Amino acid sequence: MGNKISILGFGGSLREGSYTRAMLNAAKYLVPQDAEIEIFDIKDIPVFNEDLLPDPPQAVKSFREKIKGADAILVSTPEYNYSVPGYLKNAIDWVSRPYSDNAFDDKPVAIMSGGGMLGGSRAQYHLRQVFVFLNAHLLNKPEVIVPFMQQKIGEDGTVADEHTREKIGELLVALVAWTRRIGRG
Amino acid sequence: MGNKISILGFGGSLREGSYTRAMLNAAKYLVPQDAEIEIFDIKDIPVFNEDLLPDPPQAVKSFREKIKGADAILVSTPEYNYSVPGYLKNAIDWVSRPYSDNAFDDKPVAIMSGGGMLGGSRAQYHLRQVFVFLNAHLLNKPEVIVPFMQQKIGEDGTVADEHTREKIGELLVALVAWTRRIGRG
Amino acid sequence: MGNKISILGFGGSLREGSYTRAMLNAAKYLVPQDAEIEIFDIKDIPVFNEDLLPDPPQAVKSFREKIKGADAILVSTPEYNYSVPGYLKNAIDWVSRPYSDNAFDDKPVAIMSGGGMLGGSRAQYHLRQVFVFLNAHLLNKPEVIVPFMQQKIGEDGTVADEHTREKIGELLVALVAWTRRIGRG
Amino acid sequence: MGNKISILGFGGSLREGSYTRAMLNAAKYLVPQDAEIEIFDIKDIPVFNEDLLPDPPQAVKSFREKIKGADAILVSTPEYNYSVPGYLKNAIDWVSRPYSDNAFDDKPVAIMSGGGMLGGSRAQYHLRQVFVFLNAHLLNKPEVIVPFMQQKIGEDGTVADEHTREKIGELLVALVAWTRRIGRG
Repeated sequence: MGNKISILGFGGSLREGSYTRAMLNAAKYLVPQDAEIEIFDIKDIPVFNEDLLPDPPQAVKSFREKIKGADAILVSTPEYNYSVPGYLKNAIDWVSRPYSDNAFDDKPVAIMSGGGMLGGSRAQYHLRQVFVFLNAHLLNKPEVIVPFMQQKIGEDGTVADEHTREKIGELLVALVAWTRRIGRG
Repeated sequence: MGNKISILGFGGSLREGSYTRAMLNAAKYLVPQDAEIEIFDIKDIPVFNEDLLPDPPQAVKSFREKIKGADAILVSTPEYNYSVPGYLKNAIDWVSRPYSDNAFDDKPVAIMSGGGMLGGSRAQYHLRQVFVFLNAHLLNKPEVIVPFMQQKIGEDGTVADEHTREKIGELLVALVAWTRRIGRG
Repeated sequence: MGNKISILGFGGSLREGSYTRAMLNAAKYLVPQDAEIEIFDIKDIPVFNEDLLPDPPQAVKSFREKIKGADAILVSTPEYNYSVPGYLKNAIDWVSRPYSDNAFDDKPVAIMSGGGMLGGSRAQYHLRQVFVFLNAHLLNKPEVIVPFMQQKIGEDGTVADEHTREKIGELLVALVAWTRRIGRG
Repeated sequence: MGNKISILGFGGSLREGSYTRAMLNAAKYLVPQDAEIEIFDIKDIPVFNEDLLPDPPQAVKSFREKIKGADAILVSTPEYNYSVPGYLKNAIDWVSRPYSDNAFDDKPVAIMSGGGMLGGSRAQYHLRQVFVFLNAHLLNKPEVIVPFMQQKIGEDGTVADEHTREKIGELLVALVAWTRRIGRG
């Protein structure tokens, strides 16, 4: 079976009580035994400016290092205005430019989202196009798209809905299998 | 003919010598006589955090006010990673949330982009989906998509290419006509 | 108030008992008093071949004529494989090529869809991109996206769900208003 | 090194002298030594009707069989109206429905396109979304997007442009490597 697969998770909105951050936190308890997961908080990453690339802020350096060091990536995204939230795309932009230093190159990636009626799906399809350029290998299935996410959160702010927890668990199992299949584990 | 149409332009990358900012600057000289244009610099808008919405940073307040006060909007976008740059989407997110205070509601909007081989077109199509949610009325034609933008900039940093200047001029004329047609002028 | 707005509706799958055709049929009873609607059945339109454009099949000629004669267009689409069904895109291709004879030019268009968990929304966003090229003026809101469409159909094959009927009615009212607003009525 | 990888190619427009069919034909001469390619002509596939699925037309049966029998898939697409041509999407719909009999499941797939200024790229990104649902494993790079395709065709109707031929060759090499990497060869 080989070594444990190391997964880096990031995303979620920056506000207190973010639902998509709750999904990331749930992933910590649902990761399969042959893998481990670390969550990176992108809240300290400022807006991107290409002039700063030669010496980026410390939060960007850490983010880049964490992605490069991981075997696989898990992105949790809300949907803002039918697309990826700007601050999340901004964090991705920082660590993939210049392209010669693209941290996502050849990485297996899984996406999950929560939202309103369409569960953040529109953000997922835009992200998929982004990762084509970044030459990441996206997992196709299962797609974890959680409609009416708000109703799936318990009073303590964690993911209370059992079906959602199961889907996140299945996503992690599939990501680990995909990572091994493409020889990155 | 009525009053002058007021256009607010924004976008471009934040770096010195940005090509898509040069396109915005060119628009200042190409605006038709029955319109006027003002460029808003989004560089001071920080990353979005929903918890700060009740009292947003001053740059956000100014941006929202400028958009609300304009008859029509011109967005100039580079393409980062096959989509809208995070910092630009971030600026849009700030002034459209909560949705009840969406500054773009019912506004006529035109988009232009510059990039590599595909001229930033992928960023434009993602932006178009964003503006469906924001209930803006996007101009269809002409589409100003400028491939190999770098080659169209002169030594002084302005748009030197005559064809590109013409297309920007046509876009502005069409935006003004569209604004009058939908009764926003 | 002026003349009645004439709407041409088309789409739906070709199978017996199609849900999205049931949505079109419902539209016949929900059209506002200052408009009228006709449904065109695209089932006799064969696969597109550019070599046949100089003398297209009769069904294509009729479809083109009906679209050109209408003030506004209503498309009802299922979703096949996360996009527009091939036969529906095929019908649109026939009447928009060559571009100089694009039947949709400057027409107001509304889209509705029904499907599974995401209600055909992915087909809608692809169609929206198609209509940018065709220079149609798409209605933004309301978006009629009907998840779990199968459950909204009665035993007689009509749209039984009251909420879905209401949304279709609202879409038609908004389409008529949009048609008048852009001066096509 | 193992067995030869068998590739099935399809697509291209149905007209005589199709440029994207010329790209498929070029692929026959550019396939690497450890692979072989067969081109399937989809011109006899009629418009999809779900009622006919239990006993589909012979052309559909053959297409399905060819896809299932191949190790890898190569799609060549023109762009019609900023998306996948209807007849091409229609052929894909036939062999992927019902989903339980989806011929593309777990297949490695590469896409190439030719068109006008944007080289058919918009059709490619819509196809990529389609293949997420179909659980095919799309090659990321190289993207073979050929702008101004018409100029790359010689008097004999073949791909005369050397750069385009090189890119098609690189795509095939990458598809074969990807097929082996994911264990489908």
